[in-house]
Amino acid sequence: MPVAAKISESIEKSSWIRKMFEEGIKLKAQFGDENVFDFSLGNPDLSPPIEFHDVLKKLIEKNDAGAHGYMPNAGFSDVRAAIAKKVSRDHGIEIGGEQIITSCGAAGGLNVVLKTILNPGDQVIVMKPYFVEYGSYIDNHRGETVLVETNGDFSVNIDAIRNALNDKTRAMIINSPNNPTGRVYTEKEIAALADLLTKHIEDTGRIVYLISDEPYRDIVYDGIHVPSILKHYTQSIVISSYSKTLSIPGERIGYIAAHPKGIDVGRLISGLIVSTRILGFVNAPALMQRAVARLTEITVNVDIYKKRRDLLMEGLKYAGYAFAKPDGAFYIFCKSPRADDVAFVRHLQKFNILTVPGSGFGGPGYFRIAYCVPESVIQRSIPRFKEAIDAL
Amino acid sequence: MPVAAKISESIEKSSWIRKMFEEGIKLKAQFGDENVFDFSLGNPDLSPPIEFHDVLKKLIEKNDAGAHGYMPNAGFSDVRAAIAKKVSRDHGIEIGGEQIITSCGAAGGLNVVLKTILNPGDQVIVMKPYFVEYGSYIDNHRGETVLVETNGDFSVNIDAIRNALNDKTRAMIINSPNNPTGRVYTEKEIAALADLLTKHIEDTGRIVYLISDEPYRDIVYDGIHVPSILKHYTQSIVISSYSKTLSIPGERIGYIAAHPKGIDVGRLISGLIVSTRILGFVNAPALMQRAVARLTEITVNVDIYKKRRDLLMEGLKYAGYAFAKPDGAFYIFCKSPRADDVAFVRHLQKFNILTVPGSGFGGPGYFRIAYCVPESVIQRSIPRFKEAIDAL
Repeated sequence: MPVAAKISESIEKSSWIRKMFEEGIKLKAQFGDENVFDFSLGNPDLSPPIEFHDVLKKLIEKNDAGAHGYMPNAGFSDVRAAIAKKVSRDHGIEIGGEQIITSCGAAGGLNVVLKTILNPGDQVIVMKPYFVEYGSYIDNHRGETVLVETNGDFSVNIDAIRNALNDKTRAMIINSPNNPTGRVYTEKEIAALADLLTKHIEDTGRIVYLISDEPYRDIVYDGIHVPSILKHYTQSIVISSYSKTLSIPGERIGYIAAHPKGIDVGRLISGLIVSTRILGFVNAPALMQRAVARLTEITVNVDIYKKRRDLLMEGLKYAGYAFAKPDGAFYIFCKSPRADDVAFVRHLQKFNILTVPGSGFGGPGYFRIAYCVPESVIQRSIPRFKEAIDAL
Repeated sequence: MPVAAKISESIEKSSWIRKMFEEGIKLKAQFGDENVFDFSLGNPDLSPPIEFHDVLKKLIEKNDAGAHGYMPNAGFSDVRAAIAKKVSRDHGIEIGGEQIITSCGAAGGLNVVLKTILNPGDQVIVMKPYFVEYGSYIDNHRGETVLVETNGDFSVNIDAIRNALNDKTRAMIINSPNNPTGRVYTEKEIAALADLLTKHIEDTGRIVYLISDEPYRDIVYDGIHVPSILKHYTQSIVISSYSKTLSIPGERIGYIAAHPKGIDVGRLISGLIVSTRILGFVNAPALMQRAVARLTEITVNVDIYKKRRDLLMEGLKYAGYAFAKPDGAFYIFCKSPRADDVAFVRHLQKFNILTVPGSGFGGPGYFRIAYCVPESVIQRSIPRFKEAIDAL
């Protein structure tokens, strides 16, 4: 066999999703791109802000010596300092450049963190529905994923988490704004979670990390501010990326921020640096590090996403679908009118609508609509959404 | 404990090397940068070729839609095709873009390959001396490193490899031009290795991959051409990077090339794609992918490295050191005049010369001199090298 058994499994799983995509490609070939409504991918379609372009241009023209060379694995120190300043401002706590590690996107950052903290068999709690790659990331580093239920509105279910905690618990990953639900956990939810974990540390003497994967922090609506885990819990680690904030997901640039008052945080940072090196990341891409350090005040125009969200919500309501209003990100996690969400997603395909079944996120009975598509696509899709539900 | 047990070990190991670096920093503070001869780091000091700069500028000015967005995990298809063309030319075999996966440098590529092929407990053969991170990469994916001896001139010892082969052998990694020895394996050595592995596959029915890590392929001297494993062995995988070829190690851009006639190569490629995704690389940085695709004919000026090599060889000979002439890369692996190489490296520090003990490469009794430093540093270091050996 050319590949390892686990990779073989992963190929089967992803080929299932790929088959859906391939059907999508077929549909597009058959009906034309403009007649297929592709809500399947969380690929930000907005162009990066003009400031990103300007900064890149300036950096290239300056052409500093060593600009593309090796730097310490954690990143350029001025870049780390600039990111620390932004994190301090966003999170309302004082954090220094020493607590920042630049990473190859949030996915790279998550792997670095998990590699650093997990001993074989350690458990990591994840709330459903969730970004399924978390399971692979945890398994990469020999951890075990423990899935817990959320409440009906996808809010934190403290009792479920309490029941999941044990001597093997090493970390919990939260994702807010959430993919696939668009939910932002409230200050109260975060505080309750922090209290629970603090008590667990006191009871067991074992460090449990709260890891917040928050690439969508800047993509929020209706004046919502995403509460910070750093303000509530010292054993916390924030992981973010510029993929959505600056619409540059192909450039793989993000960061890890460790709480400055975490137990033996210096050693945690040393571990993160070692993991960055030995996992083969070595460092986050040099030019992009220097670019984002100069763009800490800049985001894509979130109003565009908000308009799309509102348009889609209105349309789906009109068509007769049920869903919780998303606070951020660019997803609506819609109740499937049929219990079998995979069957319903296939049904939607007949109306040239491409979405992802909730089962793919540990959330059966739902389907995910990614609205990082032009408004016109949303507008033209609504009659088809209605036809699809009416045809059941 | 904030970090996992294995990471804790790695921190200790790297702090040993770091301590040496810190002593170097102290020396520089005390005596001035220009009076400390730092041969410790394999960090290419040459600026990237002017063409790299020009291409980046053009790409930024063009500002294509989606230029910084997600693309398939394997990379942009035109980039894969351009790299395939270069690999076909360099290796003398026909390879297509489908057999190329762009990677976050060679280190990223190696991790992706090992993740893809290793089942727990699988063995990977590595010849000494070697780049020690290989051990971490293999361990990351639950493999076991099997070190084998080379001959006195660091050439391939076929008997040693034959003895190491068994039912658990899954791969062998070679590195040519070699870090730390600068050696390039000859066509004859590669052919003998290929014969041995082919016979092992026939005997056991198990696929054994030959993985060639060759970021220094373009940094060779005296008209040497690096023989290709692809021409000799179908179960082979080439991993390379532009870090040295274009002097852009901070940008993390490289590729994996799988032999088009490998057993079930399509499935291997699918596995490499899955691993790229789940290890958190997701894809190689977008802008750099597009840059290197336009620079397949370009390298840094290798003559500069050659001049340094010749200067250093002459100086070391004059000072009384013994070493094998390096064919490529920018290292001389010098015999330590004392059996204890760590002690001798410390001794050299007293003369403000920073090098790395061979023990750090599984090659005790030697020390590595990285000559990616200006000629003047080499010139001024020679009298100190002589003083150091005379003082023994």
